[in-house]
Parts: sequence; structure tokens; C-alpha cells
Amino acid sequence: MPHIAVVPGSFDPITIGHYDIIKRALPLFDEVIIAIGTNSQKKYLFSLEDRLSMIEKVFADEPKVKTDTYKGLTVNYCKSIGAKYLLRGIRSVGDFEYERTISQLNNSLSPELETVFFICQPQYSHVSSTIVREIMLGKADASKLLPPGLEGLTV
Amino acid sequence: MPHIAVVPGSFDPITIGHYDIIKRALPLFDEVIIAIGTNSQKKYLFSLEDRLSMIEKVFADEPKVKTDTYKGLTVNYCKSIGAKYLLRGIRSVGDFEYERTISQLNNSLSPELETVFFICQPQYSHVSSTIVREIMLGKADASKLLPPGLEGLTV
Amino acid sequence: MPHIAVVPGSFDPITIGHYDIIKRALPLFDEVIIAIGTNSQKKYLFSLEDRLSMIEKVFADEPKVKTDTYKGLTVNYCKSIGAKYLLRGIRSVGDFEYERTISQLNNSLSPELETVFFICQPQYSHVSSTIVREIMLGKADASKLLPPGLEGLTV
Amino acid sequence: MPHIAVVPGSFDPITIGHYDIIKRALPLFDEVIIAIGTNSQKKYLFSLEDRLSMIEKVFADEPKVKTDTYKGLTVNYCKSIGAKYLLRGIRSVGDFEYERTISQLNNSLSPELETVFFICQPQYSHVSSTIVREIMLGKADASKLLPPGLEGLTV
Amino acid sequence: MPHIAVVPGSFDPITIGHYDIIKRALPLFDEVIIAIGTNSQKKYLFSLEDRLSMIEKVFADEPKVKTDTYKGLTVNYCKSIGAKYLLRGIRSVGDFEYERTISQLNNSLSPELETVFFICQPQYSHVSSTIVREIMLGKADASKLLPPGLEGLTV
Amino acid sequence: MPHIAVVPGSFDPITIGHYDIIKRALPLFDEVIIAIGTNSQKKYLFSLEDRLSMIEKVFADEPKVKTDTYKGLTVNYCKSIGAKYLLRGIRSVGDFEYERTISQLNNSLSPELETVFFICQPQYSHVSSTIVREIMLGKADASKLLPPGLEGLTV
Repeated sequence: MPHIAVVPGSFDPITIGHYDIIKRALPLFDEVIIAIGTNSQKKYLFSLEDRLSMIEKVFADEPKVKTDTYKGLTVNYCKSIGAKYLLRGIRSVGDFEYERTISQLNNSLSPELETVFFICQPQYSHVSSTIVREIMLGKADASKLLPPGLEGLTV
Repeated sequence: MPHIAVVPGSFDPITIGHYDIIKRALPLFDEVIIAIGTNSQKKYLFSLEDRLSMIEKVFADEPKVKTDTYKGLTVNYCKSIGAKYLLRGIRSVGDFEYERTISQLNNSLSPELETVFFICQPQYSHVSSTIVREIMLGKADASKLLPPGLEGLTV
Repeated sequence: MPHIAVVPGSFDPITIGHYDIIKRALPLFDEVIIAIGTNSQKKYLFSLEDRLSMIEKVFADEPKVKTDTYKGLTVNYCKSIGAKYLLRGIRSVGDFEYERTISQLNNSLSPELETVFFICQPQYSHVSSTIVREIMLGKADASKLLPPGLEGLTV
Repeated sequence: MPHIAVVPGSFDPITIGHYDIIKRALPLFDEVIIAIGTNSQKKYLFSLEDRLSMIEKVFADEPKVKTDTYKGLTVNYCKSIGAKYLLRGIRSVGDFEYERTISQLNNSLSPELETVFFICQPQYSHVSSTIVREIMLGKADASKLLPPGLEGLTV
Repeated sequence: MPHIAVVPGSFDPITIGHYDIIKRALPLFDEVIIAIGTNSQKKYLFSLEDRLSMIEKVFADEPKVKTDTYKGLTVNYCKSIGAKYLLRGIRSVGDFEYERTISQLNNSLSPELETVFFICQPQYSHVSSTIVREIMLGKADASKLLPPGLEGLTV
Repeated sequence: MPHIAVVPGSFDPITIGHYDIIKRALPLFDEVIIAIGTNSQKKYLFSLEDRLSMIEKVFADEPKVKTDTYKGLTVNYCKSIGAKYLLRGIRSVGDFEYERTISQLNNSLSPELETVFFICQPQYSHVSSTIVREIMLGKADASKLLPPGLEGLTV
């Protein structure tokens, strides 16, 4: 049975932090699905289409990386596609406590679903989509926080 | 003088985490008042009436447990009913830092008011009203996160 | 070259916590600029004019303290006035993780900008503008959380 | 059935932090037993006799406070004397994580044993027996870190 | 190329926490090597032989699990056997900060070595070899903290 | 009055982490004294003479940096030389909690003594004297963790 990992998120936009975690984890899995959870009540800076096409551009040369979108609970999406793993990065103590809660919840809702964690490299530990958006909205250059191929992205 | 403890919160809805803390602390007090702070600017999933009646149903067999509602600062409410204790549960480092700030504030506003803490049992450390609401809104089953008597609650 | 430190923030309103950090750091610098970042999308309890005049009143006798306002990224503001230092207080683990992220970001955007930290004194570690606003909105007395000269401030 | 709380520790020596937690918790219990766990492999600055007599001096006017010594696991000691509560103070995130582990362990070994927590007052959050010993060994005055009645204690 | 993961540690003794992490991670790897680092300056409760034979007993039915011992730096051991992954569990914020430091160090010494993390299940978050040893030395029953097959282990 | 900062520590040995904090803070002070606290009960890998000469070599071109040794409490040493500032770096949440305790203690013993903090740069956040010693004792190359001028140091 192939090892499928889901990387759930908003990716508004994908950052060099996301990119680095996925590249490092890729050899462990047969397929990594970057899955954008859609939530009609949240507001995003980039449209769903733009967010998907950015990810596809960044991973154009990685045949094991796929993209998808889903509604509702992440555990239900994973079940529906037969994925047994979630993949998540941790930057900080705050992240760790959040991820512990969510992985414990997911495991209680779907006991066969495991979450695999990588710790963020130190040079990217300040990177988040939120900070990328603030820099862009402040009309400054966010290139250093973006994955290869997206440098120069603006709003 | 009877020992009265107030458990302040929104209880939108009450969870098995709240229930467990209250049950464990109950023998220490003569009266435990579960008090819903009302705030006209916040939005709730369940109405004030529903939240109160859920709590009453859960603790129907516990004569020491009462319910109430209040407006304004928690310390003023405690003074008004002669309660000398607040009761709070702590799940995580994030909770601890929040509770430390609030208890320090309450103690500075009302020096005779003490906050008594219980640490959440590990099997409930991922439970919060926020997560219960998200599961319900995702149309999944939140029964395992709800107190005895509320299993099957939906929105 | 004079040592100029910028203390960025909303100061809605300035608290005794801000005041204490600035007083303690003042001897190290030739000039300390308390700079209110303006953001048209955020709502404030006090107007920009009120926030500035409160700060000016509090530091009326400190010729080294100036006030200012700015738009956009803090690093750009610092560059524009030739300030080489940011000054920040840390109350808690949560604060520390936030400040670490922001100082790492600022340093990556502007390598010559250093952030100097003071740890909050324990008696003020529960003080924040958020809590001051809640106490004021709850019609209680926030005097103990306000700097000398602002006691009695209400909304 | 009376509410008996055990406060386990080395008390080498008792500090103003211990004293403050016990005073604040005292009204909740019928009896508070300060119990020194003895461990022949650890080295102490003060002898067991001195540590006991210091505690007795500090609480001479509190008939509800007793002292005792025990060997082995704290849960077994509590069972042997019919105590249903442990009482502990928390100063910091590090303390919280330690206490969570120990209370979870104690609860798994003895499900009827509950641990009740108080958060340390901010002015005492830097106080520990370790720091008192270092100050004393450095020939400085530790009076401010000691409970009323022990000021002036030296080694 | 097969995916080989090393689980470094003292395993004095192996606990149900170690066991649970390894079982959950096993499907991701072709081989998991539980490697006891030997350090002539540390004292252990169980001999190296006993620690190895306990691990072998516990994983007797798992052909993918092997045991080994090594001296010196973990990164050098991993290189010598061609392992590209370290596997570690995280129980708490304290663990996270320790693991972040060590994985950052290992990555700087050996950039191709990745550490994969699983978060401990909540019911085991209080389990450590240290606590198992203390319970055993206190002549109490540590069975609940030991992996299947080792229940009843004593010193 | 000149601004004198003391950087207290064991420096067994000085690391690139220490070096980076001191270099970044240097412009703020007129004199920075790297002061090795001597403690006859602790064991060190490098002799006091070696530790001092390493520091002197590293800062040979910085006339504002001096070295010294002291016995007893750091606050007393600072008083004896007229230093009003301690300078410390923070790498992690664990460091932050330790530094908060010590700076609160120092301030209570000597109210005019302030501690100024810099947050460690991310690429050095895994560096400590302890880890340098372990790498050296493991016969590996610690050059990347040492300040300019000490690369190649071995034991």
C-alpha cells in the first residue's frame, strides 16, 4: 500500500517554510498531497485558484507532489482518499502546543491517522503566511520568505 | 462560612473537559456556581438559554452545583455573591500563561479572591468548546468531547 | 552617532508596563521615540490624538522621550529616521516567542537594526493594554495599571 | 470526612514561596501536612531536624498545619494517612510541565488522589530553595526570600 | 535505497512511551534500529545486556526492528550504517525545545540526516525511564509504564 | 558616567553564540566586562587561564571588551566595579524562564542593576558550551560553534 501524506493548510500563500518541510519529508512518502481546506467564512488575500497554481508552479518538477482542495474536517478528507499520514512542520512552542491538540483530536476521530512532524529549520522559523501577507501589504519585498519560483510575488 | 467557588466561562457548549474538572473539585467546596459571563459583542453558537439548560441537565444530580449569569468583571460578580474562590482547569502551557495573567489581575482587583487550579486529565487535554463547535459545524460526531447526558448534541 | 531607540506599538492606552520598561531603558539611549503604528483597518478605543497626548503627558519631564506616528513596516520607519535600535519588553513565554519571530524578521529585512529587550517586572507582568481596556469597559478602576499622571483615566 | 492535604517537598529550607501558597490554601482544608520526603542519596544543606523545626516555627500559630516525614513514593504516604489531596504551587511554565507529569503519574498510581494547584504570587515567582541556598552560601542576606520568623537564617 | 531510522537513547529501561512511538512509526520505514549510546561516565540501573535483551523481547515479532550499541556522536553512528533518519517522540514543551536543539545540531553536523518526530499519545505523556526507575526503586509496581512483555519487571 | 555591562558566565569555552551577542551589544556600552564566576565545586573542561586567554584572543581587537574573574554573587561583583548593567542572550523558552528568575532575583538584591537582553540569532540557537564540550569529547569538529579565532580548538 502506498504511503500517502496530506499537508493540510490555507497556503495564503505557500511560504519557503512550507516548501522546506515538504522537500525534506518527500523521500519518506510515495505521494504528498498539498490540500487546501476551503472555508467560506474566512477571507484570503489570494484566491483559491491563485493559491493552487502557486503550489503547482513551485513543485512542477516533483511528480510525487499533488494538490487538492477539500471541505469539512481534515480527517474525513484523509479517509476519503485513503491517506494514512498528515505531515506538519513545527516552528515554535506555540506551534507545538497547537499541533499536539489537533493531532490528538484527529487521532481520536480517526485512530489509524498518524501525524508526522518535522521541525522547521532555524533560518525559516520566523516565516509564516501571515507575515508574508503583512510584508506584501506593507509594499515591501517578501522574496526571501517565498519558495523558489515565487520570488517577486506581489499583491 | 461556606466555601463557594465560581467557574466562569462561556460554555458554548460545556465540554467533557469542564465536566471533569468540576466533578473532581466538587468535594472541596460547599457550592460550585457555573457562571456564564454575558457579552453582547460576542457571538455564540448556542443561545444563553440553551447553554444554561445543558449545564443544568449535566449536573441535575449534583445539588452542590448551581448555574448563574453575570455581566461585567468576574471579580465584581464574585464579590456580589460572597464567593471567595474561582475554579479553573489548565490543559497546556498556553492555558497556564493565560490563567496566571488573569488570576494575578483578579487578585490585584480583589485581594481576598483566590483561584484554585486543577490540571486537566491527559485524555481530555485536546478538548475545548472551540473544537466541539468546529466538529459540529463540520457535521461530525462530537459525542466523545461532551459530558454524560449531552452525547448526540448537534447544531 | 546618537543611540536612538524606537518603541513601536498601538498604546491603546499606554500602560504602567510600557512606562516601566521605557524608564528603565532610558539611560542607555540618547533618544527614545515612542512611535504609534497607524493601521486604518484596526479599531482602537482611544483616538490617535488621545493616545499621543497621553504619552506626552506621562513623559513631559523626560526630554529624551519623543513621540511619533508611522505607516507601514516598522523597519522602514526606523531606517527613515536613522534609528538603529528597537526597544521591547517581554512579560511571558508567549511574548518571548512573538518577539523572537518579529525581531528575526526585522533583522532579516534590515540587518543593522537590533532589538534590545527588558524583562517586565513581576508586579506588572499581568498588565496589557487589552486588559486595561476591558477593565475600563467593565466600568472598573484601572488606575493601578496606568502610568503616573494617567490614574483616573476612563472611557 | 475531613479534607487533608499533603504538601510534599524537601524544604531545604522552606521559603516565603512555600509559606504563601500554604497560607492561601489553608482555609480550603481541615488539615495541611507539610511532609518532608527523605532520600538517603540526596545531600541537603540543612539537616532533617532543622528543616522540620523551621517549618514548625513558621506555622506555630496555625493549628491546622502539621509536619511529617516519609520514605518512598508520595502516593503511598498519602494513602497511609488517608489524605485525598496534594497541594502544590506553580511559578513558571517549567514548573507547570513538571507538575503535570507528576500529577498525571500520581493519579495513575492512585486514582482517588487529586492535586490542587495555586499559582505563585508574582513577587515570589523567583523564589526557590535552590536560590535561597546559593544566596546563603554566597554569604548574602536571604531574608526577603524566607517566611516570617526565619529572617536572618544563615548557614 | 531502504529507509533506515535510528532511535537513539539509553533505554534504562525501554518504556511504553518508547514502544508506542516505534510501533506507530514502523510502517514508514524499512528498518528501525534501536541504538543504545554507551557512555562510560553515566550510571545506569540496568546493564547494557539487560537493556538490549528487554528491547529484543519486546520487539521479538517485529522483523523490521533491530538493536545496536554505539559510542560517540549519534550522527557519526548514523553515517556509519547508512541511516538517513532519526526517529524521536515528543511529550512536552521541554522535550520539544531539547529536540529542536539536538536536531538543529545534528543537521549542522550532517546535513543529509533528518529527524522525524511523533507526538506522544496523551495517556503516555507522563512516562519516562526516569519515572519508571523511581517507581521501581520505591518498590511500587511500574507495569502500566512498561511495554507489553515487560510487565512485572523489577530491580 | 560610563555605561558598563557585565557578561557573567563560565565560558567553558566561549562559543560563537556568546560572541555574537557581545558583538551586537557592544555599541550600546562604553565597556563590556566578560566575567568568569569561579566556583571551586564545579568541574570545568578548560582551566580558568585557558578560558580567559581564549576570550582575550577572540576580542583582541575590541578595546571596549575586558575580562575579569569573580567569586560569590554576581550582584556583589557588579556593585564592586560600578557596573549598572548585566548583558545576557536568550536562545529559547527555557533560557527565558531561567533569565527571568535570575534577573528578578538580581533586581531584588540590587535594585539599580538592570539586565539587558538580546535574542540569539536563529543560526546559533542550538549552540551552547555544553554542546561544544560534547562534540569535542566525541572527537568531532566543533569549529562551526566557536568564535572567529578559535576554530580548530580541541581538548
